[in-house]
Amino acid sequence: MEFTIVGAGMAGAFLALSLGRQGHVVTVYDRRPDPRGSVNAVTSMNLGLSRRGLSALDRLGLSEEVRRLVVPMRGRMLHNPDGGLRFSAYGEGGILAIQRQDLSALLVDAASREPRVRFVFGTRCTGMDRDLPSVSFVDPDGRAFVVKPDVVVGADGAFSAVRRAMHHEQRAEFSQSYLEWGWRELHIPAAADGAHRMADDVFHLWPRGDIMMFAHPNRDGSFTCSCVLPFHGEHGFDSLRTAADVESLFRTHFPDVLALVPDLGEEFLRRPTFNLVTVSTAPWTHEGKVALIGDACHAVYPFLAQGMNSAFEDALELTDSLARHPGDTAAALARYYTRRKPNTDALATMSHRNFAELRDTVRSPAVRLERACDSVLEKLLWHRWMPLHAMVTNTTVPYAKALQRATRQHRILKYSGAAVVAAAVAGLLRRQG
Amino acid sequence: MEFTIVGAGMAGAFLALSLGRQGHVVTVYDRRPDPRGSVNAVTSMNLGLSRRGLSALDRLGLSEEVRRLVVPMRGRMLHNPDGGLRFSAYGEGGILAIQRQDLSALLVDAASREPRVRFVFGTRCTGMDRDLPSVSFVDPDGRAFVVKPDVVVGADGAFSAVRRAMHHEQRAEFSQSYLEWGWRELHIPAAADGAHRMADDVFHLWPRGDIMMFAHPNRDGSFTCSCVLPFHGEHGFDSLRTAADVESLFRTHFPDVLALVPDLGEEFLRRPTFNLVTVSTAPWTHEGKVALIGDACHAVYPFLAQGMNSAFEDALELTDSLARHPGDTAAALARYYTRRKPNTDALATMSHRNFAELRDTVRSPAVRLERACDSVLEKLLWHRWMPLHAMVTNTTVPYAKALQRATRQHRILKYSGAAVVAAAVAGLLRRQG
Repeated sequence: MEFTIVGAGMAGAFLALSLGRQGHVVTVYDRRPDPRGSVNAVTSMNLGLSRRGLSALDRLGLSEEVRRLVVPMRGRMLHNPDGGLRFSAYGEGGILAIQRQDLSALLVDAASREPRVRFVFGTRCTGMDRDLPSVSFVDPDGRAFVVKPDVVVGADGAFSAVRRAMHHEQRAEFSQSYLEWGWRELHIPAAADGAHRMADDVFHLWPRGDIMMFAHPNRDGSFTCSCVLPFHGEHGFDSLRTAADVESLFRTHFPDVLALVPDLGEEFLRRPTFNLVTVSTAPWTHEGKVALIGDACHAVYPFLAQGMNSAFEDALELTDSLARHPGDTAAALARYYTRRKPNTDALATMSHRNFAELRDTVRSPAVRLERACDSVLEKLLWHRWMPLHAMVTNTTVPYAKALQRATRQHRILKYSGAAVVAAAVAGLLRRQG
Repeated sequence: MEFTIVGAGMAGAFLALSLGRQGHVVTVYDRRPDPRGSVNAVTSMNLGLSRRGLSALDRLGLSEEVRRLVVPMRGRMLHNPDGGLRFSAYGEGGILAIQRQDLSALLVDAASREPRVRFVFGTRCTGMDRDLPSVSFVDPDGRAFVVKPDVVVGADGAFSAVRRAMHHEQRAEFSQSYLEWGWRELHIPAAADGAHRMADDVFHLWPRGDIMMFAHPNRDGSFTCSCVLPFHGEHGFDSLRTAADVESLFRTHFPDVLALVPDLGEEFLRRPTFNLVTVSTAPWTHEGKVALIGDACHAVYPFLAQGMNSAFEDALELTDSLARHPGDTAAALARYYTRRKPNTDALATMSHRNFAELRDTVRSPAVRLERACDSVLEKLLWHRWMPLHAMVTNTTVPYAKALQRATRQHRILKYSGAAVVAAAVAGLLRRQG
């Protein structure tokens, strides 16, 4: 069959490869330039590749190649306002930090090696007829053209043009919601000898309630930091007007970072601010003709680091569904949607909650206590008890099942035995603290 | 000041009149033809004008003129499947049935009499620059032109083009959600002597759980019926394929209507199906330059009959806010939004709940019981106790306050004294039944 994929980001490139391997003819269009020859603008936080993503890459035989590009993070390092550090391990496998640009180029490269897969860059999607189906584009010289594949896939992100055309005058559910927080990227360069200037095998986190920051290690000795602030109010972007304002904020909340970023105040003011959007929609498919994957149908807050991982899962589910219903694309797309939707809904819920939890990790004793109980029970009960974060990060348990199980565990902790466990753990914490 | 209003429906025409009275220069554009000279396609259920709407029309000196076009409904008449009837009164004022076309023409006419108000029909909005602000249109001959007013108001309905342009690449909240039910209109003609063929002073309701129908009396002796069915399933639109299917459904559920609509089966199949959408969004304004009113910012399910009434309230609040902040349009629009948003959010919640309640009026003893308790308590406690429906329909209490009060009353009913009152009322019901 012939596929047109709109969007050559993580979701689109991975799907192209997966479909190409099954013998389908695939053309991927993207309005941006080829990631192999250019540095695209920052569009997301640095990527965290966890079990799900790795196992998806593994299925396409890419995990070895990818491992050469990553920096493994074995846990997270909490930075206290007084400069003190506290480490907590991720558990088996950990999370692998990888730069978007690197992974993007690798995926496009791998897919391009398939004889039936072709990428067309610098080419903007301007519309779609969902019933033919056909898609119209404008090439870099401004020339319009139309393609008529068997199936169109919208992998074109949270503001998907394919989604808009697919849902035009349909009874489609749609919601988009923004956090009152945004983020800016900062860069901590390597030391003169090329070494990392903080621990290089952990995810660094500065949770401060209303504001927070985190940093991923890069292979070249640098770190990519994401600084998350509210748009308005005392610590808001709109109250940071001068380099002195910024430096004063960092002196109070992130003092160790102030020393590591040269010219931090000016640098911060030069950077653009990014939004954090959640998108939810239904349906994701139109008959056997159009499907959406990735952010186009379920953009989530990035703090659980599952955006890319879940997009890979979408792509595999779509490819598997096509293989299961040869000759009946409508049935295949329906299966894909039915199986993925509850899981990405659960992911949205978890990503939302995780943000509140992340911000409050230091401040809320309740969160610390439940987290500590989780870890103790995990050790006591082996694999019959697993904290939510571990299920999301270290397993491929479907998101909906993970959320269900975590909800059950939370209830058990709350109602039965909580007192006993809590007392024991509080004792432990006191000894550790 | 100079205003451009996009949309000459209820919201736009009413606002034009209200602004014109304050001496503003107003031009209203609509892609549809002038309602005074043409019969526009059905776009909403028949209208119910309640206290809020009337008091708004009264402020503009229109209530007398409008009263000539209405049919007062003093309560609702429940039609049982066995043909039995049960009446319940609306309380003071009742609701006035009015045909959309009549009211629409009256509003456009009244606004046109203002020297500074002008209507331009057959002219489609194609875009907006929210910062200038400017709006582009295409006239009936296909000629494009641009206007540059001081303020643009989007009164262009649930799929507002002004809203889309205002929110483009902004951190805007937006959600749209459709019911799994749709509706078709049917017409019960007058008897040979011009009389109504059912009671002419009530709202007729056929609640059947999964499906329902209702009818408004018209001045010419006819009734306009709205038949609400699920899209899919046993009684769904998609299972009604032949006239015989339709007639069989009516024979079972709406037998009295079958006799009143000539050629009902064929007629039903010829009619288009309408959707029921809820739209929620934030913000409604852009600086002092753009504002939304009516369905463009808060389309609700129509079963509480408050769509038009709430749009009139929007228009008055907007006009009042402009009068309160002369020379500071940004402050005026901010005040308008801050005061209206909580109320229309409450309206959306109530409209949503009301649909479930309407459908189940006959079947659920709990709903009947609470409704009866409400009425008894209303009589016992005078105006210190008022059922939600009465607050929405017979008063101008802000929606948010009405919802709060009803929630409090509901809690009181549930927890204290419920047993006593319920027993008494159950006795009453048995005697009435």
